[in-house]
Amino acid sequence: MASETELVVFAPVLPPDESVRRAALDRHEQLTKPAGSLGRLEELGAWVAACQGQCPPLPFTRPRIVIFAGDHGIAAKGVSAYPSEVTGQMVGNFLGGGAAINVLAETAGASVRVVDISVDSADTPDEVAKFKVRRSSGSIDTEDAQTENEMRAALAAGRAVADEEVDGGADLLVAGDMGIGNTTPAAVLVAAITGNEPVAVIGRGSGIDDAGWMRKAAAIRDALRRARRVSADPHGLLRTVAGADLTAIAGFLAQAAVRRTPVLLDGLIVTAAALIAEELAPGASQWWLAGHRSVEPAHTMALDQLDLKPLLELDMRLGEGAGATAAIPLVSMAVRVLAEMSTFDEAGVSGRSER
Amino acid sequence: MASETELVVFAPVLPPDESVRRAALDRHEQLTKPAGSLGRLEELGAWVAACQGQCPPLPFTRPRIVIFAGDHGIAAKGVSAYPSEVTGQMVGNFLGGGAAINVLAETAGASVRVVDISVDSADTPDEVAKFKVRRSSGSIDTEDAQTENEMRAALAAGRAVADEEVDGGADLLVAGDMGIGNTTPAAVLVAAITGNEPVAVIGRGSGIDDAGWMRKAAAIRDALRRARRVSADPHGLLRTVAGADLTAIAGFLAQAAVRRTPVLLDGLIVTAAALIAEELAPGASQWWLAGHRSVEPAHTMALDQLDLKPLLELDMRLGEGAGATAAIPLVSMAVRVLAEMSTFDEAGVSGRSER
Repeated sequence: MASETELVVFAPVLPPDESVRRAALDRHEQLTKPAGSLGRLEELGAWVAACQGQCPPLPFTRPRIVIFAGDHGIAAKGVSAYPSEVTGQMVGNFLGGGAAINVLAETAGASVRVVDISVDSADTPDEVAKFKVRRSSGSIDTEDAQTENEMRAALAAGRAVADEEVDGGADLLVAGDMGIGNTTPAAVLVAAITGNEPVAVIGRGSGIDDAGWMRKAAAIRDALRRARRVSADPHGLLRTVAGADLTAIAGFLAQAAVRRTPVLLDGLIVTAAALIAEELAPGASQWWLAGHRSVEPAHTMALDQLDLKPLLELDMRLGEGAGATAAIPLVSMAVRVLAEMSTFDEAGVSGRSER
Repeated sequence: MASETELVVFAPVLPPDESVRRAALDRHEQLTKPAGSLGRLEELGAWVAACQGQCPPLPFTRPRIVIFAGDHGIAAKGVSAYPSEVTGQMVGNFLGGGAAINVLAETAGASVRVVDISVDSADTPDEVAKFKVRRSSGSIDTEDAQTENEMRAALAAGRAVADEEVDGGADLLVAGDMGIGNTTPAAVLVAAITGNEPVAVIGRGSGIDDAGWMRKAAAIRDALRRARRVSADPHGLLRTVAGADLTAIAGFLAQAAVRRTPVLLDGLIVTAAALIAEELAPGASQWWLAGHRSVEPAHTMALDQLDLKPLLELDMRLGEGAGATAAIPLVSMAVRVLAEMSTFDEAGVSGRSER
């Protein structure tokens, strides 16, 4: 194939600093609380310290949510409760500050960026569309989601966005998704990588009825048949199934790890892309934490595959990075506990009894 | 008995406004997200709207944590990993801002108040000790925790603190606890009310070793024998088992409901007191939400008894109101989603497809 775009190769991923993680756990023993009494918040703070390479860790100054928007040809087969035009309309809503993610992010002290990778509209602002790869994607039950060249461009776009964000000072990243029909390719990706059947990975998405469920099941079945031929090849899976938006998310997650920046994963779409990112940049998952568990069954399979335990279980199923953003305050608390609490010595508080 | 202090009788508890709750759920259908896609955050926002009696609800301006501190005579029997002097020292740490709850509260946008109800020290500042009932409490394996008169004073103290806070503008309340040895009376209360055995309600508290576990099991067994005689009488249980600090928490939780102010419950200590508060002020639990599930087994029994499902499960076991405070940002998000998100009409976003 004569390709114009070079294939992205990710730099090696180094692990978070284990000695700093241990120092943080030691510090937890000195703080004025029974050792271990903050439960998962203690591990969480130690993980951020290890990611930053310093203990105590610095409180976050620029948590950042990046929403990757794209349409999916498969939506025309009736796999979603909403029409495709909603994707572009929601990009406008994000920019106007009226979407759920805007409100959640503001409460969490985070800011939101929207990137149009493959929205089926020519109307998104230039700044938002500067990484646009194509309009929509192929209908994956019968054709590839994108060409090899588009896949390469999308992966490069995700990497470039991660670089821009890290260079811009982001110290905690969340990837979000917006795209009518996108739970179908995500479920197919998870099925292809984890070896599950269509009936096991299908979920209600944004809220399909029973007739929609049958159409979605057929779409997943047909797409999975095409995907299985390339299931050992992450680039082939991206080209065949993912669409440019999910591909960009995979590139973003991989590059965040290369750049040693902690990431909170969101729901099914982002975690499906994460499965590919871990193949493209082995070890990247050490830089990720699961923000929440959504109601989509394939999300739990993807989390299990990555050995990640979610912080929240609130029956959410929105996308946009909403579940991960809901968890940001917990991560902020975990960091500030290590940075700001007094030690037993400092506070003049007695330690454990010797009996 | 010639009692100097009048027995507190709580005013009737009215339920949160059901019509407002329904209006909030209707509003959720109009906001630019698939209906139901924010999961428990949607119910949560509707509950706060019902508590406030208005939809959309107002974002919180004064979330408030009140820590009730008290010592427990049973601590002398070796049921805790820490010496009793830590209770008073931690009061100083709260006032100095160095404890976990200070850091969590600041991150959540909440403020902290400490109330010395029964700390075994004469050194707490006057303002903190203005509701002080006594120093420590009786060793409940062999004697009552407090006199009838002290119990009445403690209940009145909790009620007065709730009134002060609501009158001071608090719009979301958290009760916290500080008291070496306090998981023992709390476990006994839960066992007495739910009909469970000592071996089922005992937990590691702040982190006892196996020898401490045996001492704690014996203490719970002996105290529960005394408590069972009065298990149908909430005031009798408070006098026999609770100590003045847990009694004040019960009064605080009951009065918060009387004053129509939503409360996030914390862990075992607060939820054990909540069991009594629900008996003293029936219906009060409609004004409470469980912030988290701690690792203490008796906490889960108390939550089940109250039919409350916790927001967080992070293996915490600190007390201080820490678990509830960790959940405050989720409640803030739930409220702000209802108050600040755009509707489909406002944002020009299409609704569900008709197929």
